[in-house]
Amino acid sequence: MTQRPDKAYEHEIRVSWGDCDPAKIVYTGKLPAMALEAINGWWEQHLGDGWFQMEIDRNVGTPFVRLEMNFSSPVTPRHRLKCYVWPVRLGDTSIAFRVDGEQDGKLCFSFRSVSVFIVADAFKKRQPPREIVDIVTPLLGSDWD
Amino acid sequence: MTQRPDKAYEHEIRVSWGDCDPAKIVYTGKLPAMALEAINGWWEQHLGDGWFQMEIDRNVGTPFVRLEMNFSSPVTPRHRLKCYVWPVRLGDTSIAFRVDGEQDGKLCFSFRSVSVFIVADAFKKRQPPREIVDIVTPLLGSDWD
Amino acid sequence: MTQRPDKAYEHEIRVSWGDCDPAKIVYTGKLPAMALEAINGWWEQHLGDGWFQMEIDRNVGTPFVRLEMNFSSPVTPRHRLKCYVWPVRLGDTSIAFRVDGEQDGKLCFSFRSVSVFIVADAFKKRQPPREIVDIVTPLLGSDWD
Amino acid sequence: MTQRPDKAYEHEIRVSWGDCDPAKIVYTGKLPAMALEAINGWWEQHLGDGWFQMEIDRNVGTPFVRLEMNFSSPVTPRHRLKCYVWPVRLGDTSIAFRVDGEQDGKLCFSFRSVSVFIVADAFKKRQPPREIVDIVTPLLGSDWD
Repeated sequence: MTQRPDKAYEHEIRVSWGDCDPAKIVYTGKLPAMALEAINGWWEQHLGDGWFQMEIDRNVGTPFVRLEMNFSSPVTPRHRLKCYVWPVRLGDTSIAFRVDGEQDGKLCFSFRSVSVFIVADAFKKRQPPREIVDIVTPLLGSDWD
Repeated sequence: MTQRPDKAYEHEIRVSWGDCDPAKIVYTGKLPAMALEAINGWWEQHLGDGWFQMEIDRNVGTPFVRLEMNFSSPVTPRHRLKCYVWPVRLGDTSIAFRVDGEQDGKLCFSFRSVSVFIVADAFKKRQPPREIVDIVTPLLGSDWD
Repeated sequence: MTQRPDKAYEHEIRVSWGDCDPAKIVYTGKLPAMALEAINGWWEQHLGDGWFQMEIDRNVGTPFVRLEMNFSSPVTPRHRLKCYVWPVRLGDTSIAFRVDGEQDGKLCFSFRSVSVFIVADAFKKRQPPREIVDIVTPLLGSDWD
Repeated sequence: MTQRPDKAYEHEIRVSWGDCDPAKIVYTGKLPAMALEAINGWWEQHLGDGWFQMEIDRNVGTPFVRLEMNFSSPVTPRHRLKCYVWPVRLGDTSIAFRVDGEQDGKLCFSFRSVSVFIVADAFKKRQPPREIVDIVTPLLGSDWD
């Protein structure tokens, strides 16, 4: 199992009734969105801006080209969901993140995504701005596998 | 690229304003849920029951243990989203599905998931009911890669 | 009870597992969004364009200023949800819609909303375009109460 | 305008990219669900249990029979959304809540709902448990209008 880096960002999500399906656990269709919320929180924490401000104020977009997710334990409203987020790779025009979701000390899911950097208003691939490279590089942690 | 089987089920989704983010395309966090909706539609089409009836009337659950998704083109409200669904593997206690999402003849995403069969009220792994084996087996199509 | 006009638009929604909460009925938080989907469908049906195209191609927005909703019977995945939509009032710069949601011939909810017409890129109130007045006027039906 | 009571519960919601539509504001269809989340938070705060635990551990449900919502200013990801929640009426078998949503000191919406108390597993109306009456009564604040 991957070692989570100490510098992983912790994003807490309040899970509730409306997130659950008749099996009394969070509906699978909601879990990828929760992992994405956590990545957006990582950007807020480290860049100061989430995707909304990145797109509108900085004209930088990071659309997803891939995600994968393994589910190991159901998520319920009985505990907060703690999502640990860290970047695992910074490519020439792309970035990959890992998100581990835990409840009550138990791993619920592991998520990995790849996004590309784009000029937002042109939807055209670009290299990440220098500021982002400088923020991401020291935070890179171990990748999946 | 994977060959989509002729017998793939076509599930049409009406994409709209509320699915889109400020980049004017469907928010990534909604796309896995759309693929899941399409798989639920596959069950309705072939078994006659979706997940709701499977759980409540048949006491059979199929929780997800894994999903992966590649995004190749944005989804927008300008066309209906056609999701093509087919099973790719039936294991002793598991089932894997592929979902390809297309708009206007263009591939938008490819999705693959693995679920396990459980006794719903006991949340305990089981083999799929005979009826399900009989339905799935002749519909198996080519897997990812 | 309000008389639903013959010319009400019927918008069918496929209700499923992921819409339901642990009470095995559609979560209340999803029902207003279903009524909005139905209104968007009304625009698609009558104007040819939904909110996405109205905003982007026509520069006309219709943000909501009010909604109210009465719930009379739970919505479940056992039947399709039929939403009947009609405009009930066209003001100088506003429009009000009614949406009745039914399953299996039984009323599940009644919804009423008020929107204002705006110049989308200026977020500034405006009168509805002539074409919209011409479409809406003959379709006006009886209002709430 | 209604006076918000000092004892209103404050529920903070992190608004983000995925909540917004192409108009760059939170999609209307998400706002009723945000108000509901805030009411669920009120129960967690005052009863110690949210709807999930109320239903499953206490066999008490509070399905909604009515909601209404006025929108006065758009919600965006530029600020946290602060939802102020308080009960406005406790009937023999029902409870009404108000939720005011604010960003950066500005009122974005006012929401009011009515729920009934039920025996959850029987979906049958009941009076609220004594404990709930004792919690709600001293917190009742001024109603709409």
